[in-house]
Amino acid sequence: MKYSQNIGKLMHKLLSELFPINRSITGKGVRDTLSIISREIPIKTTKIKSKSKVFDWTIPDEWNVTEAKICTSSGEVVVDFLDNNLYLMSYSTSVDSSMSLSDLKKHIITDKSRPNWVPYSTSYYEDNWAFCLPYNFVKKLNDDNYQVKIEATKKSGHLEYAEAFINNNAKKEILISSYICHPSMANDSLSGVVLSVQLFKEISKLKNLNYNYRFLFAPETIGTISFLYNNKKTIKKSIEFGLVATCIGDKGKFTYKKTRNGICNIDRVINHIFNGRNDCNPILDFSPLGSDERQYCSPGFDLPVGVLTRSIFGKFKEYHTSADNLEFVKDEYLKVSLDLYLEIVKIYEANCIFYRKEPHCEPQMGKYDLYRTIGGGGEDNINELSQQRMWILNYADNETDLLEISQKSGFDVLTLKHASEALVENKLIFKKI
Amino acid sequence: MKYSQNIGKLMHKLLSELFPINRSITGKGVRDTLSIISREIPIKTTKIKSKSKVFDWTIPDEWNVTEAKICTSSGEVVVDFLDNNLYLMSYSTSVDSSMSLSDLKKHIITDKSRPNWVPYSTSYYEDNWAFCLPYNFVKKLNDDNYQVKIEATKKSGHLEYAEAFINNNAKKEILISSYICHPSMANDSLSGVVLSVQLFKEISKLKNLNYNYRFLFAPETIGTISFLYNNKKTIKKSIEFGLVATCIGDKGKFTYKKTRNGICNIDRVINHIFNGRNDCNPILDFSPLGSDERQYCSPGFDLPVGVLTRSIFGKFKEYHTSADNLEFVKDEYLKVSLDLYLEIVKIYEANCIFYRKEPHCEPQMGKYDLYRTIGGGGEDNINELSQQRMWILNYADNETDLLEISQKSGFDVLTLKHASEALVENKLIFKKI
Amino acid sequence: MKYSQNIGKLMHKLLSELFPINRSITGKGVRDTLSIISREIPIKTTKIKSKSKVFDWTIPDEWNVTEAKICTSSGEVVVDFLDNNLYLMSYSTSVDSSMSLSDLKKHIITDKSRPNWVPYSTSYYEDNWAFCLPYNFVKKLNDDNYQVKIEATKKSGHLEYAEAFINNNAKKEILISSYICHPSMANDSLSGVVLSVQLFKEISKLKNLNYNYRFLFAPETIGTISFLYNNKKTIKKSIEFGLVATCIGDKGKFTYKKTRNGICNIDRVINHIFNGRNDCNPILDFSPLGSDERQYCSPGFDLPVGVLTRSIFGKFKEYHTSADNLEFVKDEYLKVSLDLYLEIVKIYEANCIFYRKEPHCEPQMGKYDLYRTIGGGGEDNINELSQQRMWILNYADNETDLLEISQKSGFDVLTLKHASEALVENKLIFKKI
Repeated sequence: MKYSQNIGKLMHKLLSELFPINRSITGKGVRDTLSIISREIPIKTTKIKSKSKVFDWTIPDEWNVTEAKICTSSGEVVVDFLDNNLYLMSYSTSVDSSMSLSDLKKHIITDKSRPNWVPYSTSYYEDNWAFCLPYNFVKKLNDDNYQVKIEATKKSGHLEYAEAFINNNAKKEILISSYICHPSMANDSLSGVVLSVQLFKEISKLKNLNYNYRFLFAPETIGTISFLYNNKKTIKKSIEFGLVATCIGDKGKFTYKKTRNGICNIDRVINHIFNGRNDCNPILDFSPLGSDERQYCSPGFDLPVGVLTRSIFGKFKEYHTSADNLEFVKDEYLKVSLDLYLEIVKIYEANCIFYRKEPHCEPQMGKYDLYRTIGGGGEDNINELSQQRMWILNYADNETDLLEISQKSGFDVLTLKHASEALVENKLIFKKI
Repeated sequence: MKYSQNIGKLMHKLLSELFPINRSITGKGVRDTLSIISREIPIKTTKIKSKSKVFDWTIPDEWNVTEAKICTSSGEVVVDFLDNNLYLMSYSTSVDSSMSLSDLKKHIITDKSRPNWVPYSTSYYEDNWAFCLPYNFVKKLNDDNYQVKIEATKKSGHLEYAEAFINNNAKKEILISSYICHPSMANDSLSGVVLSVQLFKEISKLKNLNYNYRFLFAPETIGTISFLYNNKKTIKKSIEFGLVATCIGDKGKFTYKKTRNGICNIDRVINHIFNGRNDCNPILDFSPLGSDERQYCSPGFDLPVGVLTRSIFGKFKEYHTSADNLEFVKDEYLKVSLDLYLEIVKIYEANCIFYRKEPHCEPQMGKYDLYRTIGGGGEDNINELSQQRMWILNYADNETDLLEISQKSGFDVLTLKHASEALVENKLIFKKI
Repeated sequence: MKYSQNIGKLMHKLLSELFPINRSITGKGVRDTLSIISREIPIKTTKIKSKSKVFDWTIPDEWNVTEAKICTSSGEVVVDFLDNNLYLMSYSTSVDSSMSLSDLKKHIITDKSRPNWVPYSTSYYEDNWAFCLPYNFVKKLNDDNYQVKIEATKKSGHLEYAEAFINNNAKKEILISSYICHPSMANDSLSGVVLSVQLFKEISKLKNLNYNYRFLFAPETIGTISFLYNNKKTIKKSIEFGLVATCIGDKGKFTYKKTRNGICNIDRVINHIFNGRNDCNPILDFSPLGSDERQYCSPGFDLPVGVLTRSIFGKFKEYHTSADNLEFVKDEYLKVSLDLYLEIVKIYEANCIFYRKEPHCEPQMGKYDLYRTIGGGGEDNINELSQQRMWILNYADNETDLLEISQKSGFDVLTLKHASEALVENKLIFKKI
């Protein structure tokens, strides 16, 4: 099996290793996750103390849990957190008590619309406890005096996030942002993490890149807010564009949600690529409902960050349930997603603006061996390479980039880039820096 | 019967009282009309002497008429102005003469396309006399020596217009402009007058308004030109927007004709409202043919004034004939029209721009009791109120107004305004002034 | 036969006289062509020495040819350049040699897709020789030892182009550009030349023009580059707009290819005209593939120059073959094309911006005898001339030109121009200069 065929499998294997960990926005699950990632690629971890202020927010205490069970009066274990860490609402407090079914139900969260799946729930900022269970399972529970036991701690500690960085000595950087706070769900959160890890490896192999690359692995919302808080003075200047990577391993068509501005270069590049494919949904406008783009695109930052998923969060039925599992995400979907991210990188890197030192009239192409020497026959008879060069020479005006030339001419960006090389070598055009 | 159900009746009653008066651009008819209006709402009347210059125009002499008749040679009265003041062309000069039918016909105006109705005609600025009669009636007149008698005067006097003003101590004002120069026609001219009177009463009851309100009752064209002449130095600065109110009592769908600029806030507000209704015609671009918007939108003023009618002038068959009568205008149409004008006022008043003192990232909504504390479930599970607040917080950027947020989010302006209140109270957003 | 009916015949007659000449980018053919043109209209010829540098290009040596033949071994002449000067590739070098059919074929150019026609070919900048022959003709050539004779010279001399100028003492000029380098083809190149000649005559008769007119007759590409080189310091300032005139005598619908900028006044004028006709193709965006617009619209110049053809170059099957002949171009097509160019000139000349010294409210039109004095009846009853004047008066705002008023009002530019005249005479509006 070739390496390239193998990549999807490698990504899925990493995902399977990460899947069982009980992650939340702080605690051991985050550390275990970062430890596995650090085995794959070099990362730098940042810790922020509990109770620290990050903008309007306060970092919560660390939450760790060792046990969470419901037993019948006869001692039978009917729910055990060790079977599925979604059973316990994230940040649940300790409890050790017996109670009637009706009292227990005040602490049970179900989703009647998806009755056989465990729903995912959290209560990060208010003390509370709950079990999350399939609606049909709860329906069958007998009236009984249940013994409920949760062993959990909330203690001062740290919130942690990590960055991997590819330094190409560039002035600006591209950010790929994924989140590491979700417990056992495969597509939401984890698919973005394994895509980021593999993308880091692939981009590291590329030469002559114009941008640095930063990969952020942070708890959603509070982690990203912490990252932004720590970089608030520089990020507006340093970022070229960013993408939130999540929900990228299912079979759905690709979905792009634009930056808040909507007309950034990353929006143009992805629009260019989506127009040439048939596995993409219509592009969505920005909205302040969603994932970490809510923070990147808050009015004080308004960064050029979009979201690139397959089925977008909230819009597939397995979302935020136990059905978002290792079968829902497949090797081949991960692989095609990785290829798309790489294509974006390559086209973004290829895009540039040219200018000419002698911009009057066409150059005499024959002199440079860049044109057929037997003329006549008209436009249709000029070979495509010559046509591409004519387009580039005419729009080597210090203003028009290859993306726009692509739109005008119908030739794609990488083809135009290739056609430009001989023009650059002959000093007929120069790259605007 | 409730007050609100009663409003249409009240409006129609006032209209019926105004209908029989023989109005023109000057004279007793105008004074009688303003006298009735002054009984309803407080107005301030402005007089301009005949022969005064207002821009390129000269105020004409006052015209008053006491008698206008056509009798047969045997003394039978066949046409009497007292039966319908449309019979006499406005500003007709005196005549007392007998003449053949063919000579009389040189002074008869008919409308063959609407053969049973009296057409409306005027000759304000050139001495002339004429009777306006149904085409079918004139066809049946026998050859005879007719006695024609018109007792009319054109003497130096005044042109008069009146203003009602609601002072909310605001910097800018909203203008509702109607005209009082048309004789017995109900939809054209008068429906706008009674709508203005009632709108004055309704707006007077509203609290915490951001604008002052001015209601102009003026003879069309020359009266409005006089008003503009008297306010030429201030109106460009003081006016927030204006609407010409006329033809607003028939059963036709609503018609909005945009301001000359076409993208003023009033255009945006009405577009927003029309999009949510099914009783509206497609919005029309400005044209310099029409009513008093011709003056407001002349290039020297170019004011943000639109026209809001039901069937627009010139586009319903009863227009400018005796068929534009008290049956053509109905209570319920007047009432719904009033409601629409009030809705415009409310949405215009509600629209505003917010900003945040800490615009980085989202605020921690839980702290302010503004968000469900149990998370998860994604975008679809966030209740609508939370979604509205997210939209407002993201676009509290000192640039985007509620109208634009409404367009982006799909939530309507008044709903968003309501959702913003708790954010304002918690000092999470501030209103740009 | 009236003169106007005769014009098409005159144009075709001139075309027939020019057709047989063996033109190329230099040499006797060019001089003979200019000599005939100079008999029709006054031209000024500019000569540039061989080897001169014009921007990136070098003027080639003059090419002249006296004989070009292929004979069989038995002495039979199978191809003679005197029969059709397309038989010889332009700028072929001398040869006098016998060779096998297979060796000869290395110097034969055919076009299999148009097998019965002679294709047109050139090799201006590389020494080479070739015959251009119908594919079906070549297929039938017997194996033989052919005697090939070309008597041609490439010697230092001149490249020549000519200009005709109509001086209206204006600040800016309009350029009509045609090319004179193609041998016996009628639609491509020559139809543009005869249209230019006749257009010169017609425009010379017009009075009170706002622009000067320049007609360029130059070898395509290198000639136009030479013209631009000689005028590089002034042309950007002096040119109002330009049109490349070619392929304008066939039966195809009209085709307009926009300026590089795409929103110049000439683009707006032609869009206006095309919208009112049914013999026009959809307007094309600029592309850097085509004729002399490639030079005019190179980034260093970026002049407001479009291309107006019937079937555009490269898009009709006779293009660049012997089938582009005197039958392919017809009198009546030439005549309608001339009319279209003249209409463009007239509308462009008519277009202007007005302003008012008293821009507040409407003028009192009755005072100037410019309005019906009996009012009423509304918008529909205002006659069209009054409506046109209302449009002009409202948009006499020192910003809006007649073209835009035309678009807003639906009245065409020349009608509006006519309606404006009385307003100008009455000093109600003034032309912005």
